[in-house]
Amino acid sequence: MKLVTLRHQGAEYLGIHSGDHAVLPALSSPKEGIPRTMLALIGAGDDGLSMLREFTDPESTGVRIPLAGAELLAPIPNPPANIICLGWNYVEHIEESASAAVRDRELPEHPVVFTKAVGSVIGPFDPIPFNADFSSQWDWEVELGVIIGKAGRGIAESEALEHVFGYTVINDISIRDVQFRHQQFFLGKSADGACPMGPCVVTADEVPDPQALDLSCRVNGETKQASNTRYQIFGISKTISILSQGMTLRAGDIIATGTPSGVGFARKPPEFLKPGDVVECEVQAIGLLRNPVVDAADLG
Amino acid sequence: MKLVTLRHQGAEYLGIHSGDHAVLPALSSPKEGIPRTMLALIGAGDDGLSMLREFTDPESTGVRIPLAGAELLAPIPNPPANIICLGWNYVEHIEESASAAVRDRELPEHPVVFTKAVGSVIGPFDPIPFNADFSSQWDWEVELGVIIGKAGRGIAESEALEHVFGYTVINDISIRDVQFRHQQFFLGKSADGACPMGPCVVTADEVPDPQALDLSCRVNGETKQASNTRYQIFGISKTISILSQGMTLRAGDIIATGTPSGVGFARKPPEFLKPGDVVECEVQAIGLLRNPVVDAADLG
Repeated sequence: MKLVTLRHQGAEYLGIHSGDHAVLPALSSPKEGIPRTMLALIGAGDDGLSMLREFTDPESTGVRIPLAGAELLAPIPNPPANIICLGWNYVEHIEESASAAVRDRELPEHPVVFTKAVGSVIGPFDPIPFNADFSSQWDWEVELGVIIGKAGRGIAESEALEHVFGYTVINDISIRDVQFRHQQFFLGKSADGACPMGPCVVTADEVPDPQALDLSCRVNGETKQASNTRYQIFGISKTISILSQGMTLRAGDIIATGTPSGVGFARKPPEFLKPGDVVECEVQAIGLLRNPVVDAADLG
Repeated sequence: MKLVTLRHQGAEYLGIHSGDHAVLPALSSPKEGIPRTMLALIGAGDDGLSMLREFTDPESTGVRIPLAGAELLAPIPNPPANIICLGWNYVEHIEESASAAVRDRELPEHPVVFTKAVGSVIGPFDPIPFNADFSSQWDWEVELGVIIGKAGRGIAESEALEHVFGYTVINDISIRDVQFRHQQFFLGKSADGACPMGPCVVTADEVPDPQALDLSCRVNGETKQASNTRYQIFGISKTISILSQGMTLRAGDIIATGTPSGVGFARKPPEFLKPGDVVECEVQAIGLLRNPVVDAADLG
């Protein structure tokens, strides 16, 4: 299933992609217990997904919203915890960062893991509020997002994918001067609007091999990043296993699995986003984020 | 006011310290809108605090629970976002860490900021679940915790304390081998049980100078850390201002403001917690955490 979150009559609703419409299950059935939001669905486990299957029929009746005019939100607009992010998880991205900042070029033995603030999340087509008072070094990072469906600690690599609810697209917008001057990345990753996410969640059963997905980023139509998740150093199973060794991964946790080469700060000369730009992030079989960069002062 | 969160008849309740009892406002008045939890109170702003004042009278009637037998939880048992933490924010702690790991001894120009997972939070007297399969390097860090009451971005240093709801005590338990091998600190700070918090929140009006509080940590009765918040490199106002430059601080956000010298890994030889230990963290005018370290396998 391809699931979206959208605003309808002022409230947040889970919707199911059906052709060029989204069906809103909570408004389409008199049954009790139909999940109204993505987090409610994830919390309901397999039963939740079963309840939704009837709505995937293009002929099914119910409240259907044309996707063209819908106000799509991030799939989980208010995550229950910070977004967990991997740094330097594609071979060539490590090489470009080393070249830019004279880092060690050896492949890491352990992943770099940091977080993005809950409040940085915005929708798949929302403006990125470029806050020039904060920094002018706003950079792009297309990433495959993994959404945990089943909680666990000490998860074995061989069982890790059973804990995945689905996949989404994340633009891990990074404010480079802030990221590096504070040593730890959190503040440089957490500006308001620095986490466009969506446009949907594709459930895990419809992504047979998440390590074989093309992903790319374009700025004003020009390709800046283009790679494939097969080039991840720490694949999804390995990542879930490592993250969960000491910390319980919880249903609804979101993991951004790192970005390939082609980011702005490592270019010669460096390139950064500016108001008027449009940045697009795409992952095969999932979808496309398209966010205009807008001066935060103009957004009020 | 001194506020606690406790479990009563299976549910989480906000309580007000009144002598050796806690009064539960939500169960003590027929009025509508009395906040039932700490987050509800924080969300209600000044009106929420006003509603509670009548319950601070030791003679007030209502549901009163003896604190001696109460099941105290962390003041915010399920924070709405990761705990925001400062690293190396006391001069001597930087010096000991430099000595231990050959770091640069200069005072930082910018604070180091990372996060702890939501799920690491435990109550002020709960056992710390020592997970030997994960690591044997569990270390202590007493810290003053700041709880944000009023949201804001771009907060001026001069107005920062107006955004503080209150203060608490945090033990920023750190798994040292994990913290350092992943470069970014998140995973080494986020083990289940690695964030004892409480025992209460003292509202900001009752802490006239948060930069003049003794804080200390004892393990099995032996003092390991003893300092004063006046030795913070980045004080609370400066910290709030820096954190909020690009990111909106939200009501309910929790900031752990760094730890003084005396942590275990920097000792010669290094010392770490082990099952059977009792670790106490105390901040003047706020209170004391006392957490036994228990083998996680024995906790089931």
